[in-house]
Amino acid sequence: MVKNSLGRAIPAVFNGKPLVPYRDPFSLMPQGHVAPRPLRRVNPGQSKRLSSLREAIEASGLRDGMTIATHHHLRNGDALLGMVVREIDALGLRDIRIASSSVHPVHAEIIPFIEKGVITALECGVNGPVGELASKGELACPITVRTHGGRARSIISGEVPVDVAFIAAPCCDEYGNMNGFYGPSACGSLGYAHTDAEHARCVIAVTDNLVPYPASPISIPQTLIDYVVTIDSLGDPRKIVSTTTRVTSDPVGLLIAKYAAQVIDASGLLRDGFSFQTGSGGISLAVADHVRRMMREQKVKGSFGCGGITGYFVDMLEEGLFQSLFDVQCFDLKAVESMGRNRNHMEISADMYANPFNAGAVVNRLDTVILGATEVDVNFNVNVNTESNGYLLHNTGGHSDTAAGAKLAIIVAPSIRGRLPIVKDEVTTITTPGETVDVVVTERGIAVNEKHSELRKELLRRKVPVKDIRQLQQEIYQVTGRPRPLEFEDEVVALIEYRDGTIIDVVRRIKD
Amino acid sequence: MVKNSLGRAIPAVFNGKPLVPYRDPFSLMPQGHVAPRPLRRVNPGQSKRLSSLREAIEASGLRDGMTIATHHHLRNGDALLGMVVREIDALGLRDIRIASSSVHPVHAEIIPFIEKGVITALECGVNGPVGELASKGELACPITVRTHGGRARSIISGEVPVDVAFIAAPCCDEYGNMNGFYGPSACGSLGYAHTDAEHARCVIAVTDNLVPYPASPISIPQTLIDYVVTIDSLGDPRKIVSTTTRVTSDPVGLLIAKYAAQVIDASGLLRDGFSFQTGSGGISLAVADHVRRMMREQKVKGSFGCGGITGYFVDMLEEGLFQSLFDVQCFDLKAVESMGRNRNHMEISADMYANPFNAGAVVNRLDTVILGATEVDVNFNVNVNTESNGYLLHNTGGHSDTAAGAKLAIIVAPSIRGRLPIVKDEVTTITTPGETVDVVVTERGIAVNEKHSELRKELLRRKVPVKDIRQLQQEIYQVTGRPRPLEFEDEVVALIEYRDGTIIDVVRRIKD
Repeated sequence: MVKNSLGRAIPAVFNGKPLVPYRDPFSLMPQGHVAPRPLRRVNPGQSKRLSSLREAIEASGLRDGMTIATHHHLRNGDALLGMVVREIDALGLRDIRIASSSVHPVHAEIIPFIEKGVITALECGVNGPVGELASKGELACPITVRTHGGRARSIISGEVPVDVAFIAAPCCDEYGNMNGFYGPSACGSLGYAHTDAEHARCVIAVTDNLVPYPASPISIPQTLIDYVVTIDSLGDPRKIVSTTTRVTSDPVGLLIAKYAAQVIDASGLLRDGFSFQTGSGGISLAVADHVRRMMREQKVKGSFGCGGITGYFVDMLEEGLFQSLFDVQCFDLKAVESMGRNRNHMEISADMYANPFNAGAVVNRLDTVILGATEVDVNFNVNVNTESNGYLLHNTGGHSDTAAGAKLAIIVAPSIRGRLPIVKDEVTTITTPGETVDVVVTERGIAVNEKHSELRKELLRRKVPVKDIRQLQQEIYQVTGRPRPLEFEDEVVALIEYRDGTIIDVVRRIKD
Repeated sequence: MVKNSLGRAIPAVFNGKPLVPYRDPFSLMPQGHVAPRPLRRVNPGQSKRLSSLREAIEASGLRDGMTIATHHHLRNGDALLGMVVREIDALGLRDIRIASSSVHPVHAEIIPFIEKGVITALECGVNGPVGELASKGELACPITVRTHGGRARSIISGEVPVDVAFIAAPCCDEYGNMNGFYGPSACGSLGYAHTDAEHARCVIAVTDNLVPYPASPISIPQTLIDYVVTIDSLGDPRKIVSTTTRVTSDPVGLLIAKYAAQVIDASGLLRDGFSFQTGSGGISLAVADHVRRMMREQKVKGSFGCGGITGYFVDMLEEGLFQSLFDVQCFDLKAVESMGRNRNHMEISADMYANPFNAGAVVNRLDTVILGATEVDVNFNVNVNTESNGYLLHNTGGHSDTAAGAKLAIIVAPSIRGRLPIVKDEVTTITTPGETVDVVVTERGIAVNEKHSELRKELLRRKVPVKDIRQLQQEIYQVTGRPRPLEFEDEVVALIEYRDGTIIDVVRRIKD
């Protein structure tokens, strides 16, 4: 057990793998090479079609102890991971690791297979029940939570060798060319799946919409696909796009959004070439709404919008406020539809989006990102993984990636949530290091990281309620009282891996 | 020296590298992995712009004995390879190998640098003077001629590790995102450059058209590009697109085209889903013209057109005769312009086009390809590399790749060229093995490979002049006489590498 640079105690080894403690966001240089991948040969006339998922798993050579991957563009509507795990069980395979891009509440269906020893590790973050059970010590399944960029890095670098990748392909031909734009399970971007297709030892395309050769446009090409399987349905299309995509109407949220917009305006970044990312939450969209109006008023011609893309950003693209969109994942059907017809709405891989170990990811070019938090601490460290009960309930997503990349990473959050203060002495779990977080915006005031003294001055000049983060914390504590610390066992149930592969924190089993 | 399966004497070693003799087109399975490539890291705020080509070469770490690559989309208008070689010389570097996708007559400018020892090997095919001088024994520069697919394979497999790739980028942003669609040097597809960008140790984008970030659409992404350099001009735009793109008006050519069309019609391949490739020569286009009319008349809805793409194929796409085009290289400005606006006109890498060692190249899906020849022999082996004087004057291109992939590979050629017969006992150089060549069409008759007995019968039934290839040869010899064999020294000046990396033939120094 050693302490990393943020004071978190990190074990030397987890699930058999030696760990490197986090030090800082930018200095770790990659050693070594892109992971080797076997060369293949498919001759003319050879078919890639197999009649069932089971046949494909058999053909893939999946064996006990190996690693599989799926991707989460179908989100809480995804049926594929569950189907794959059931087939793996039916084939009698055991000790399989899952290295999917994310696991959602719908994937609670894999819990019995974890209990049965079919699945014995999650090389990916989790949303919902699996993490909760792990936090309670009720699942023997070590979890490694990664950022979107960190996951791409882990696969590309060979840290997590994926043996078999299953790609849910909403529009696919019999030779494996695919896109996510068309079909009953259309999800738009296939951003997370690109890395899997490029690096897994065996790649299986699974589709409910087989189209005549060639699928067009092609997001992931035939050269990477070993087998093609058709099934009835990739998932429940109503749940594929499940995020809130409306501007908040809550007065607290609206005030936070107004302050965040003032920070952007004061930063000087809102000029021609402006680039911007927000999530899909109501406050984020309210900030986007302010930004949109400011861009119109100030006649700013932006460069790109990025991220999980909503219809809101599609509107801004079509209005000419952005030149392009970079889309690793569509958050709504308007975004899906836009990708299918607008070439400036560009699909990007998770590697291109956020991998720290390539020749420069898109996050490096972000001016401003709006991010959420379950907690922040007085050093600007942010937690998005664990909730106030200490349960691991959320995946990291692009949080740490965009914070590291953007010139101005703004956390927006209500000062009090469920009677608990948002600003604490220490967050339960550090997801994103404070040195990459620039501003924390609450309805009670704004805290600016001390490295931005000019911005702080400008905000004060503009009479925006800037406060020292400790002062902000005290004001909140006056309402909420000092929160009682959570109590944990020593047992580590999950790693929080920083994007460069070092360990920024761990999640421990909660005390009964 | 051993004989390969076609009876050609292959040395054990060439330029220090052990050789594997050709055996057959399909059975060699790849061993090993995709070549390793160093991981990189580019942090936010780091610039990739360098002020000159020389500075970029210095930054790349290019040293004596290393290998560089450029691509030939700018064809005989390319200025970049010459510029790069001059800068390399100015920096005092020696013993550099060139692994470009092709070398054109314009690149005669590198000859003095070969003579000076700056360039000491060509890991690529050549068109024009360099090959001629090598054939005469006047250049000490071993040449390895590869197919387009074989070149991709050689780089991806690590057989030819490229240290520094220079990519001529007609539309490029400061972070290296690029396409070939727009700008004064627009060339359309950047198909050959993809492999270089993905596998070279260091990748330098060179542009005469720097656009605001991000370039859109993106053909080659920022994640692969180390440096960006602007220069005045990538080449002479008038020569960038230099191929004949008109249907022949020569009666012999028109008769050949008519026969070839009759073969396609008789083959039964002209049905919905038909896929087709031709080159850009006048006879090829005349065949395309017949095919177009037959598709219209028979209401055939084709799948894809492929290859180097001409405006002729663009018309067929727009007419709805093809669903898509796969474009590794644009042959004219109409094709360039089409790529910039039509998403069904898809750019493909040379890997996707023709590499035999991936999960299935586009050539595998070809129904019919129309190919040229300088000679064929009575075993249907084809020569496109050497001319009747024995000089190495032509690169292989996609010839052997498409012949291997297509269900029906048709060679079109006049029976006599420059008073010499097209069909010989033995071709001077075997480019493409006869077992992948299905039909030879001349104006004097058609020879069908014996594996296609049904097609032969159907052609006879249709009263198309089918002849045994030896009979065809004898008829031609009656006009031309038996050609005098060329005389060669033992010295090997070039290898003709088959697409799988085995050696199908060699080019020897011509006797004075």
